[in-house]
Amino acid sequence: MWFEEMWRELAPIGRFDGTGGYRRFTYTPAELECRAWFTAQATSRGLSVETDRNGNLWAWWGDADAGGAIATGSHLDSVPDGGAFDGPLGIVSAFAAIDLLRQAGFTPGKPIAVAAFAEEEGARFGVACLGSRLLSGAITPEAARALTDDNGVTLADAMATIGADPDAIGRDERLLSRIDAYVELHIEQGRAQVDMDAPVAVAEAIWPHGRWRMDFTGRADHAGTTRLEDRADPMLTYANTVLAARKKARLAGAVATVGRIVCEPNGTNAIPSRVRAWLDARAPELAALEQVVTELEQATVERAGRDGTSVTVSRESYSPHVAFDVPLRDRLAGVLGGAPLLATGAGHDAGVLAASIPTAMLFVRNPTGVSHSPAENAEMPDCLAGADALATVLRELAA
Amino acid sequence: MWFEEMWRELAPIGRFDGTGGYRRFTYTPAELECRAWFTAQATSRGLSVETDRNGNLWAWWGDADAGGAIATGSHLDSVPDGGAFDGPLGIVSAFAAIDLLRQAGFTPGKPIAVAAFAEEEGARFGVACLGSRLLSGAITPEAARALTDDNGVTLADAMATIGADPDAIGRDERLLSRIDAYVELHIEQGRAQVDMDAPVAVAEAIWPHGRWRMDFTGRADHAGTTRLEDRADPMLTYANTVLAARKKARLAGAVATVGRIVCEPNGTNAIPSRVRAWLDARAPELAALEQVVTELEQATVERAGRDGTSVTVSRESYSPHVAFDVPLRDRLAGVLGGAPLLATGAGHDAGVLAASIPTAMLFVRNPTGVSHSPAENAEMPDCLAGADALATVLRELAA
Repeated sequence: MWFEEMWRELAPIGRFDGTGGYRRFTYTPAELECRAWFTAQATSRGLSVETDRNGNLWAWWGDADAGGAIATGSHLDSVPDGGAFDGPLGIVSAFAAIDLLRQAGFTPGKPIAVAAFAEEEGARFGVACLGSRLLSGAITPEAARALTDDNGVTLADAMATIGADPDAIGRDERLLSRIDAYVELHIEQGRAQVDMDAPVAVAEAIWPHGRWRMDFTGRADHAGTTRLEDRADPMLTYANTVLAARKKARLAGAVATVGRIVCEPNGTNAIPSRVRAWLDARAPELAALEQVVTELEQATVERAGRDGTSVTVSRESYSPHVAFDVPLRDRLAGVLGGAPLLATGAGHDAGVLAASIPTAMLFVRNPTGVSHSPAENAEMPDCLAGADALATVLRELAA
Repeated sequence: MWFEEMWRELAPIGRFDGTGGYRRFTYTPAELECRAWFTAQATSRGLSVETDRNGNLWAWWGDADAGGAIATGSHLDSVPDGGAFDGPLGIVSAFAAIDLLRQAGFTPGKPIAVAAFAEEEGARFGVACLGSRLLSGAITPEAARALTDDNGVTLADAMATIGADPDAIGRDERLLSRIDAYVELHIEQGRAQVDMDAPVAVAEAIWPHGRWRMDFTGRADHAGTTRLEDRADPMLTYANTVLAARKKARLAGAVATVGRIVCEPNGTNAIPSRVRAWLDARAPELAALEQVVTELEQATVERAGRDGTSVTVSRESYSPHVAFDVPLRDRLAGVLGGAPLLATGAGHDAGVLAASIPTAMLFVRNPTGVSHSPAENAEMPDCLAGADALATVLRELAA
């Protein structure tokens, strides 16, 4: 089967045997191999391939200069030990959709483009959706050029591995003006479609979300000899905050996660002097998100008072509600026979580009809901249903 | 003042300017400088200095070969960013006590030794009281030789910096047979003596104590898109365990601390797959300690069931109750005019040696109770009272 063949070629690239997860970090050998796979797939279909000024790959069916293009695609990079589908499913499905359209004898009235956006996960340089942010001007070239990876390599130096000119990065008005709409297909990163019994859904919105750093300060002391009543243990305040975040998120219909912690001095027989941790919170509505964070901060400060510790909460990033283009969204849901609408807590390039061009998203069912993990999975019949839906959408929009 | 002059010489050695705390790790330059200070102090008093087969320093007043010696002392090494008094107070006080005895015209009837035990904190090689454990056979030479520091340097290689022969380590019957009693003076690592209004106290016992590693396993997942009810978040189970440990310790009259945590993958937007943490628990009675640990494990397993996670608890070290020699203890309390008895949650070389020779301890008041911290402090009048008490004890035992 041609569809599974594409997966077989892509599967070994950047897979880490120790975990079975993918480590496809932007501009590293594994990701460059993914780009070569993309180019080979496009070339074999007679599509012309170009890399834009911001490191994003584009494969064109038809004349890019004609304008009014319908773009689709996703990303090839991964989080550390990520799954096989987060990103690549959108690109494999794009090529498959073109094949389905050609098999059906469809001739597009507008150019169709397949895009692979660079550094969507932000796993190497820390800024998610970096390629689409640069393309649309959501990050300045100066700020992007200042980014470094964990080894101190700058984005500029990393871009040199694909022969790109770091002085040329930034909002690409010419490219944006050529595109009428961008439709991204992505694996669902949750289980809503399982409950809906829907292999394919249409994105409604991206939830407001943000990250907050929490600094808990106490007093280092001997774990064996310091009476409980004499302690100022910031780990207690932290632990209470973790449980409170969960409870407040549940009550507000939001999600909240504390997945990152740094403890000092982190010794078995030492009461910590300091605990730093990060809160990731998201909610369908901005009001619910703000309620969670405000109430959590109050509860944490109150608990710190009882523990003899102190706490500061500082916002590190914040993305308000992204509504996808409503007419486009409704047109997709309609042509797909009333596919259900689904809001998501995850950020995507389509969400970034929504500020510059009409965008939409299709989601493919994820039976376990697991993502950002080697265990991420999607069933082939659902993936084929996704490719078929994407073909239907492209036929509708590029007629 | 001669007493403060000793402190002034010792104060700058191994102090880290960034924190004001001490980093005197065994066989590193800072600790070797402390050893040189010890040798200079001993030599200036006409004491003969030797390093035993296990890297412990000994300064002898009188003929070591005569037997029946009364030994005192403590340790020179520190925890990371430790205080000035934990260890050195016992050694400075030992030299000061000898000075006081000589000023009083006392001539000992038995040899008096000042000892500095190696690696008491276990901060470099991980095993607390390593020098006294080797001396008394509480650890095998093979197990000790296999120890490495964080940089992979073996104990054997580290011992070479003082010219010691790693093949010669192990229980030292000859040295032990020369010693009738060991009395260690140490800063209190708590505030009990503040409440007692006692500058000096006599140790009653070392509490039963142990360390347990707790492995919480869940499922890595996307922090933005995974519904709360679909999560298996081990951080929740961990947080509940931290709070439960505190509560159960309080109810049992014990202490429990979780000061060390490792979270994987430790990403802001990732639900953790695994949290490892260490429990340090101590109690006046073994039954109370076992109650805390047993009840905590039950509560943790029960909570893990609700969180969809799993947990294993494994004991990494365990020290049952150490009772110091009762006749010796009562003799000291008597000669010190009814100094109060005090049990402690901290381990000490005197506790290790108690299995081989009669041992006792004196504690000096700590006004804040803070220890294992740069903020550790003792007031000079209390330190002088401690040195005076130690002189009284040595006069009693070595008459």
